[in-house]
Amino acid sequence: MPKDAGPQAKTNPGRFFEDYTVGDVIEHAVPRTVSGGERALYHALYPARHALYSSDEFARACGLPESPLDDLAAFHIVFGKSVPDVSLNAVANLGYAEARWLRPVYVGDTIRSSSEVIGLKQNSSGKTGVVYVRTTGRNQHGLAVMEFARWVMVKKRDLDAPAPETVVPDLAPAVAPEKLVLPGGIDFSAYDFVQAGEPHRLSDYQVGEVIDHVDGVTIEEAEHMMATRLWQNTSKTHFDATPRADRKRLIYGGHVMSMARALSFNGLANAQCLVAINGGSHTNPCFAGDTVRAWSEVLDIAETPAPGVGAIRLRLVAVKEGGMAGQLKGEDGKYLPHVLLDLDYWALMPA
Amino acid sequence: MPKDAGPQAKTNPGRFFEDYTVGDVIEHAVPRTVSGGERALYHALYPARHALYSSDEFARACGLPESPLDDLAAFHIVFGKSVPDVSLNAVANLGYAEARWLRPVYVGDTIRSSSEVIGLKQNSSGKTGVVYVRTTGRNQHGLAVMEFARWVMVKKRDLDAPAPETVVPDLAPAVAPEKLVLPGGIDFSAYDFVQAGEPHRLSDYQVGEVIDHVDGVTIEEAEHMMATRLWQNTSKTHFDATPRADRKRLIYGGHVMSMARALSFNGLANAQCLVAINGGSHTNPCFAGDTVRAWSEVLDIAETPAPGVGAIRLRLVAVKEGGMAGQLKGEDGKYLPHVLLDLDYWALMPA
Amino acid sequence: MPKDAGPQAKTNPGRFFEDYTVGDVIEHAVPRTVSGGERALYHALYPARHALYSSDEFARACGLPESPLDDLAAFHIVFGKSVPDVSLNAVANLGYAEARWLRPVYVGDTIRSSSEVIGLKQNSSGKTGVVYVRTTGRNQHGLAVMEFARWVMVKKRDLDAPAPETVVPDLAPAVAPEKLVLPGGIDFSAYDFVQAGEPHRLSDYQVGEVIDHVDGVTIEEAEHMMATRLWQNTSKTHFDATPRADRKRLIYGGHVMSMARALSFNGLANAQCLVAINGGSHTNPCFAGDTVRAWSEVLDIAETPAPGVGAIRLRLVAVKEGGMAGQLKGEDGKYLPHVLLDLDYWALMPA
Repeated sequence: MPKDAGPQAKTNPGRFFEDYTVGDVIEHAVPRTVSGGERALYHALYPARHALYSSDEFARACGLPESPLDDLAAFHIVFGKSVPDVSLNAVANLGYAEARWLRPVYVGDTIRSSSEVIGLKQNSSGKTGVVYVRTTGRNQHGLAVMEFARWVMVKKRDLDAPAPETVVPDLAPAVAPEKLVLPGGIDFSAYDFVQAGEPHRLSDYQVGEVIDHVDGVTIEEAEHMMATRLWQNTSKTHFDATPRADRKRLIYGGHVMSMARALSFNGLANAQCLVAINGGSHTNPCFAGDTVRAWSEVLDIAETPAPGVGAIRLRLVAVKEGGMAGQLKGEDGKYLPHVLLDLDYWALMPA
Repeated sequence: MPKDAGPQAKTNPGRFFEDYTVGDVIEHAVPRTVSGGERALYHALYPARHALYSSDEFARACGLPESPLDDLAAFHIVFGKSVPDVSLNAVANLGYAEARWLRPVYVGDTIRSSSEVIGLKQNSSGKTGVVYVRTTGRNQHGLAVMEFARWVMVKKRDLDAPAPETVVPDLAPAVAPEKLVLPGGIDFSAYDFVQAGEPHRLSDYQVGEVIDHVDGVTIEEAEHMMATRLWQNTSKTHFDATPRADRKRLIYGGHVMSMARALSFNGLANAQCLVAINGGSHTNPCFAGDTVRAWSEVLDIAETPAPGVGAIRLRLVAVKEGGMAGQLKGEDGKYLPHVLLDLDYWALMPA
Repeated sequence: MPKDAGPQAKTNPGRFFEDYTVGDVIEHAVPRTVSGGERALYHALYPARHALYSSDEFARACGLPESPLDDLAAFHIVFGKSVPDVSLNAVANLGYAEARWLRPVYVGDTIRSSSEVIGLKQNSSGKTGVVYVRTTGRNQHGLAVMEFARWVMVKKRDLDAPAPETVVPDLAPAVAPEKLVLPGGIDFSAYDFVQAGEPHRLSDYQVGEVIDHVDGVTIEEAEHMMATRLWQNTSKTHFDATPRADRKRLIYGGHVMSMARALSFNGLANAQCLVAINGGSHTNPCFAGDTVRAWSEVLDIAETPAPGVGAIRLRLVAVKEGGMAGQLKGEDGKYLPHVLLDLDYWALMPA
């Protein structure tokens, strides 16, 4: 490369809409080995208390070899790797679907990630398009640990580039219970409700029930940046205060997701393992100084083949100040301004 | 539970004064496995430099199998588990007594915690009462790692609930030296003063001597919240800025304790292992922006049966700006407004 | 020591200029065992993405037994130990030279550090002098992991103390390529450029080429204090806001160094192992709120005896707002006011 190629010639400019082709598989860079350090940091950054992810003894009593890394930490690692290739030039992160955890991540595992382009649709403006990818995280044995589809709106580099053939993937509105993959060996038949922190089993919850998780956490800049960096997420908007006049940094939506999930312990202490995300929207931006609270709604209940293990489908809603349990959208059908996250997921719970 | 039980029906409201009965044993939830991550975070959050807790090699030269988790970290973990059951509705944390470390906590240990109610005394107002508990932390082998008594003022839920019989436990004003439990195998006969950082042995200290630890640390919100969360302490007041008009979060007293202990390295580098807390008071609140300093007073000196190991009883005082070494109380006998912590403890030091 | 020796009699006042003698070797206190916790914290505090330091699998494919601790983390640990003995009373950290990494630091290693005084020169003012030291870090086997020379300006305690004989060491302007020490077994012949994140090998870079690393990070107080404490650096100026009217804390120069190095991934993803620092200057102070960016200039290129491994000599420049890639000094020959760091180092890259 000639010297006069300019000082940005070797840096990654990210992909633009016309750089994607349906069927392409992108191997994301920078594999990552996790240790007890990642687990401890997760507990320092979020009020995480689900016992299966806190105690090796509790995990063993549930049939696992030891306590896995928190499922959302695994998600963040797999997701973070895809950012430089998928969402560096994204205008918006539009949605998630068909996310499944396929195998727990344990201390010592090395995670890498790849994405297949599964859909493309240029917007009518001709300036942007929607890119659909299916991202898969794998461990050092090449075994998949999780997969998810997401779609993002990406800028075009060249507005005159021709529009690709429109391909919109057929994504399930929810992961069917029979498609949930359970951690190998999981068994809740000797589940210790006292050590887990709450007495409620799956049969104590009813579809439609709303749970206010009560507690709130006021967010600090240092914390969301440490979390986002830990997952090697390179999106500039979370770290660099200079582009905005108010010098605010937009908080990674996954930080709000983990905060809300951790807060949901209070009322859902036995919703231990995340096994699927059916859909999710980051409905309003979150900034440092906001106080995040959460509420959940029970959407569905299902059986699983594992001993004593049921599945609960939950809507997890994160709100900032002004949010009230059960209040999601206004009369106009739009999300209320204090709703930060609307996440639809499946978790495992003692039946 | 019926759907119309309301969105807070499954969350933990905490116990109120009338929910305690003398003799009850409460098993606290969420056991916790510790790793090198907790140790590294302790070193990132506090200027901790005591060599026995920093170096496996130093610890082995002192007869231990490896470097244990900092003793105050063990205390915070055991204490944190008790918060949801003991102090969620506490108006004030009134005191500690008879705290003893009974066995070091090592990487890989899983800690759980339980509390026995050992006293109850309704206040004359009829609105609150004092609850005395003895809390014990145990490792995965069921062996006690530490125990302490504490008493808190707790609200009554129902002001008309009858007052219980008053039981005030007989707590020792200090742990007698012969009741100190030493880490198994500890031996300071080949103690390396150079690697430890200071030349002073127990015989260099005199009862009544005051040590100004000089250094100061200005406290940040992100740090005290990360620390408090790491110990899974759920007290809302440390995390949620919204209840107070000034949006201040009250800092967990244990954060001040660990900060002061770490600062005390400068002058007490050889006060390695904490073995007992005789008493302690969080005398004034600490908020982000305060600059914490510390001073110590030598209260007593004792022998131990271990080779080369003596015990030093210290008053550790944390102060914010305006505090001066040796200044504890005003002429009215009350703590000065800049005194944050008055802690009376025993530590082990080369004799 | 008599009780009336005063409350600061046992604390470390640090050494003053007249306390140093050429040829003295100072053993620094507080050895430190590193774990996965330190590695995870490094990834949380900096946007570190170099694959060799992120993935055990990647490291093994490059001939190492596992992923080492980041080289700058090793530097900070060795450096931090020297602060209480070398720079507690320093007015300025003047420079570095002849720094070489000699052996990677792995999880489980215990690091200690010592410094030899190699030069002394009293300043003409008679109030201060320059102290030159060569600091060496060693692991638990006594094997050197890194060494560096640095020189600091230190206050005299007693202005009437006689000036020592001036000894100015002969320090190399740069570490010669043949003096670089490579990690044992390193082999880039099967280097995975896809997992590493960029396609550029050594032959793609030209001497004189400037690389703008583009991304910026706005610095927070909590983060730089956590980093600096993690390395057990005791310099008061980084932690105590009270001495300055503006309550700013001066950020440890090493924090800026690690931030700039991590940012340099974007354009230098394959500059994996640091092997030498030829020189370095902290040219302007950095404070919380500053947004740090970085650019690099290729200074030299060299061969090494290891398979597929070349060496690249780089100037790494950290800037705050206003800094532009390639702009280092003004017409007066002085560093521009927004230049924070000018670091000259050797790294290993696939040839």
